[in-house]
Amino acid sequence: MDNTRVAVVGVGRIGLTHAEILAHRVRGAQLVAVTTSNEERAAEVRRTCGNIAVYEDLDALLAGEELDAVCISSSTSAHADNVVQCSEAGLHVFCEKPLALSLQDCDRAISAARRAGVKLMIGHVRQFDAGHAGAKTHIDAGAIGTPLVFRAISGDVDPPPPSFADPSVSGGLLVDAMYHDLYISRWFMDDEVKRVYAEGGALVDPAIGAVGDVDNAVVILRFAGGAMATLFVSRTCRYGHDLRIEVIGSQGAVQVGYYRHTPVRLLDKQGVHHDMARTFPARLGDAFVTELQAFVDCVNHDIEPPVCGEDSRATLAIALAATQSMHEGRAVEL
Amino acid sequence: MDNTRVAVVGVGRIGLTHAEILAHRVRGAQLVAVTTSNEERAAEVRRTCGNIAVYEDLDALLAGEELDAVCISSSTSAHADNVVQCSEAGLHVFCEKPLALSLQDCDRAISAARRAGVKLMIGHVRQFDAGHAGAKTHIDAGAIGTPLVFRAISGDVDPPPPSFADPSVSGGLLVDAMYHDLYISRWFMDDEVKRVYAEGGALVDPAIGAVGDVDNAVVILRFAGGAMATLFVSRTCRYGHDLRIEVIGSQGAVQVGYYRHTPVRLLDKQGVHHDMARTFPARLGDAFVTELQAFVDCVNHDIEPPVCGEDSRATLAIALAATQSMHEGRAVEL
Amino acid sequence: MDNTRVAVVGVGRIGLTHAEILAHRVRGAQLVAVTTSNEERAAEVRRTCGNIAVYEDLDALLAGEELDAVCISSSTSAHADNVVQCSEAGLHVFCEKPLALSLQDCDRAISAARRAGVKLMIGHVRQFDAGHAGAKTHIDAGAIGTPLVFRAISGDVDPPPPSFADPSVSGGLLVDAMYHDLYISRWFMDDEVKRVYAEGGALVDPAIGAVGDVDNAVVILRFAGGAMATLFVSRTCRYGHDLRIEVIGSQGAVQVGYYRHTPVRLLDKQGVHHDMARTFPARLGDAFVTELQAFVDCVNHDIEPPVCGEDSRATLAIALAATQSMHEGRAVEL
Amino acid sequence: MDNTRVAVVGVGRIGLTHAEILAHRVRGAQLVAVTTSNEERAAEVRRTCGNIAVYEDLDALLAGEELDAVCISSSTSAHADNVVQCSEAGLHVFCEKPLALSLQDCDRAISAARRAGVKLMIGHVRQFDAGHAGAKTHIDAGAIGTPLVFRAISGDVDPPPPSFADPSVSGGLLVDAMYHDLYISRWFMDDEVKRVYAEGGALVDPAIGAVGDVDNAVVILRFAGGAMATLFVSRTCRYGHDLRIEVIGSQGAVQVGYYRHTPVRLLDKQGVHHDMARTFPARLGDAFVTELQAFVDCVNHDIEPPVCGEDSRATLAIALAATQSMHEGRAVEL
Repeated sequence: MDNTRVAVVGVGRIGLTHAEILAHRVRGAQLVAVTTSNEERAAEVRRTCGNIAVYEDLDALLAGEELDAVCISSSTSAHADNVVQCSEAGLHVFCEKPLALSLQDCDRAISAARRAGVKLMIGHVRQFDAGHAGAKTHIDAGAIGTPLVFRAISGDVDPPPPSFADPSVSGGLLVDAMYHDLYISRWFMDDEVKRVYAEGGALVDPAIGAVGDVDNAVVILRFAGGAMATLFVSRTCRYGHDLRIEVIGSQGAVQVGYYRHTPVRLLDKQGVHHDMARTFPARLGDAFVTELQAFVDCVNHDIEPPVCGEDSRATLAIALAATQSMHEGRAVEL
Repeated sequence: MDNTRVAVVGVGRIGLTHAEILAHRVRGAQLVAVTTSNEERAAEVRRTCGNIAVYEDLDALLAGEELDAVCISSSTSAHADNVVQCSEAGLHVFCEKPLALSLQDCDRAISAARRAGVKLMIGHVRQFDAGHAGAKTHIDAGAIGTPLVFRAISGDVDPPPPSFADPSVSGGLLVDAMYHDLYISRWFMDDEVKRVYAEGGALVDPAIGAVGDVDNAVVILRFAGGAMATLFVSRTCRYGHDLRIEVIGSQGAVQVGYYRHTPVRLLDKQGVHHDMARTFPARLGDAFVTELQAFVDCVNHDIEPPVCGEDSRATLAIALAATQSMHEGRAVEL
Repeated sequence: MDNTRVAVVGVGRIGLTHAEILAHRVRGAQLVAVTTSNEERAAEVRRTCGNIAVYEDLDALLAGEELDAVCISSSTSAHADNVVQCSEAGLHVFCEKPLALSLQDCDRAISAARRAGVKLMIGHVRQFDAGHAGAKTHIDAGAIGTPLVFRAISGDVDPPPPSFADPSVSGGLLVDAMYHDLYISRWFMDDEVKRVYAEGGALVDPAIGAVGDVDNAVVILRFAGGAMATLFVSRTCRYGHDLRIEVIGSQGAVQVGYYRHTPVRLLDKQGVHHDMARTFPARLGDAFVTELQAFVDCVNHDIEPPVCGEDSRATLAIALAATQSMHEGRAVEL
Repeated sequence: MDNTRVAVVGVGRIGLTHAEILAHRVRGAQLVAVTTSNEERAAEVRRTCGNIAVYEDLDALLAGEELDAVCISSSTSAHADNVVQCSEAGLHVFCEKPLALSLQDCDRAISAARRAGVKLMIGHVRQFDAGHAGAKTHIDAGAIGTPLVFRAISGDVDPPPPSFADPSVSGGLLVDAMYHDLYISRWFMDDEVKRVYAEGGALVDPAIGAVGDVDNAVVILRFAGGAMATLFVSRTCRYGHDLRIEVIGSQGAVQVGYYRHTPVRLLDKQGVHHDMARTFPARLGDAFVTELQAFVDCVNHDIEPPVCGEDSRATLAIALAATQSMHEGRAVEL
């Protein structure tokens, strides 16, 4: 195949980003449709992606279009069902992370894709960021010796609306936001987690606490091979969208992240000042393009996706154990 | 107008970049054709830009296509003639910098565009870089007081082939490469240069010297209002494509530039290590998109271009005076 | 008093540093003697500190000199007895951290000093580093809002000899090395720790494991007010003596630490390179001077010391609980 | 000799710094006296350096003390006479830079020291800074290939009083302040300057202009071997004491300098903020100690000083030529 006909299912913030990228920046793909029941959103899609088809929902989409693949950006609780339905329709699937909110749903989605013989790739965008990819290259080249400790900070400037933070919708802070760092920790350390301990609280935003979520949390991981990790995730990182990771190894260390966003620095009597990225599109930018290009290349050239459903399932297992640890005040074995 | 039909004239390194951007990343524009007499180049254009028309030369292009605008990326010595011809054909013109190699040719091109009533925008890409734009915003906001001194470094990793370095083709180092910094110096200092002094030499690459060019040079500018500038430009900046500017003012300073390119840092027994951008697309990236978007917006919405022909002419005047100073060993008044 | 006559008890690595500083760099103090039973060490003291008296041990020192104060730099297991003996001799005491290896010994030392009415200051040198002090000033000024999370990394380049690492001598990694960060966490967060969880291992140096210590560990703290901390401490941080702390608050964040030690940067085809401090004297330098000056000022001007015995006791309590957590695999309440 | 008896001649800002360092921080030296006719200054010396002798002037000092060496920190216009007088008295001489304001006076001082067979070392403190020394090591090791271009910025936060800026007292901006960078340019490039061009103005402080000096200037140097330099020096660098140098070579580059002074960084909604050194003692700190230690070691061990009078003379020659260029508006050959 040399041209994948793709539709985006769900065009919220991240879905719209995916749609624009598929419309304009990915080679070998053609965006043919999206789904949304929201008129305003449909208008915005047409404004930014060209005059493509807009369907009310996935059923209508599957009935109305000849497709090769879908990009699923619906709410997390719908992911598994969407993956199953699209797989059974014979479509290759890119699904925004996390694959599901339960391990059972992960298994169901993975099985459906396998049975149908379609590609299933999960949207772990940081794997496609130049910083994260560069660090992985250094680690794999042995530049830091054996990885010993993984340290991550991951902060959003502002909390999401409580309706999204609601753990029954998003899975809660550790499933929704720390998920990225948990995923990267397995990738960088090349090992499985055996024990987890977490502390968290709704320290800033009572509305987050009211729906049963936390806005700041810290986690310790112990890997099977003895290595360790500390993670911090925040929904109230007022100074910027702060993604930083370091891995300390037996011979050195590697760090991912940036304090300065635009290449400009102001110096005055009060000192030296510069900006910092404040949103994830600002911080990750081209990684979203690289990610979808990778998916489309897998489809067009029949390659295994670089991020498979099993990776997402293993990450979810840690996130769920961490959530349990946070609620029960004790370490949880996996 | 809401959709500009545009062709790219000349698809060398920078022309191909423009073509790809117009094909995929600019809203309100449609790339319909390019010109090149090179079969390989034509094939590469079709591979990266879709199945668009390829014409042998500008005459054939103008005869064969209905266009709204052109993007001129031919060799510098052809710019003025191309601008005149396209203007007379009623097309809006984006012309890669410098507009010409002589002030007379600049005047001829500017007049032709004005007579024809078409937009003429010059490709000063750094004006669209987030760093340069941010610095200008700080300066205009008074954050550094009165600008006193402008300092620039501008280095390419490797010299161009002597056939391009040849001053009769490119204008030589000060016209070809320092031009960008000279342009930005007028923009940042908001003043005109009255005197210039330059030193330069073919210190690294004898082949550059053999065609009458230099590979490294330094320049001092004196502005009419008293402010000063020091500039350094190099064709042999082995460690990276190094673009850094600072303006020191009466109350503070502002700096543009970055040492680190990708957000990854390696730490080992030898110290701390990171990369640096090595090419201008790596350093300036999105600025090329922003630039062409600005041109297309000017065409579609009948706005004055942010970089006009007169700006390019004034910059060339400084570059020519600096070249004369370098050859004559004395300060030259403008 | 305007001139404190002081002796240094124990002139190992840190004791010799204190002796040199008291001999040459502290105003209002006169170094009159040290204790050591090692002839070579005595010779080195005379070479670097001038021709001062050297006594075999503390008994001989107290019998032979008229003193105002002592600086105790003996092995940690001797601290408490030394403090008691010097207090009862009416001498003001500066004692290297930690005050003791058990809470009972801390209490005994604190009581002795209080009964005798002498000053007791503990050597928490980081409190006197410009970075740590500057961060505390920002926090106290409200620049980051309410402190939410404390993150620390603290690494030595090479492990100490197993004879020192032995927990019965040094207290082990969490008491010996992480102690500094625990102390700073209470100071920055201005709160008490209520729960602690730790993981650790002898991942690099089996000789450390053989004496019952670990070489790398991570810790989570929960503060009474809800705030949290993650700490990482390493004896095998090959790339440098890495001391970095950040506090994220409800309105911003503050960071302490440096990647670059000397102000020089090398750029070549492989990228950008610079050094990093490799020892604690290199990293903390003048803080050791500021610290002893603060002690001497307290003695001369009858001021309360900025770091009292109770602070050291409270820090030890956390370090002991973390050690227990690490061994028992469960969170420990304080 | 193993203990140099030294006196400081003149205890203005820099002389007091030298006196304190000789009193407390240099091994193998004993500060025995200073000269000053100012009662307050004498009191400050006694407070910070101990109860040493204070003499009205150099005649009184030489009559009253048995000395081995002097540290001359008098006004620049007195340097040459002081050096001659002390040399003839058989004393080794450390003289603050510049050695004199005319080449004739330099020659007179150098000859006197040579005839008397005493050491003459000039106070080029930056040569002893870890950054400058580290860069020189990299250059000498061939890490950057052949040095091609030297770039320097050197800024003081506030202008000196006009009485000091007066060129007849200080030599003017290029002799007084840019001197340091000119000296370092010869040291780093290991070559002699053959041509110089300068522009300057009293752009900020009219009082500086009224005494015939400038407050900001830029200079281009051409070295005999073809290499070049651009220098910027400012008396009105409001944001900090900014000392930065880079040398670009045929294979790489090396940079000296720091933006951040204390290791602390504040992050808030406005961005990222940190401080910068604001005075030369803050920036250069220990270099002043290293410098005087080097002088005392030369005296005690009969070693040639690392900075000789001829170096200072050659630097002055460039500074005077640059001053002439600035006034005459033309390049000046040396």
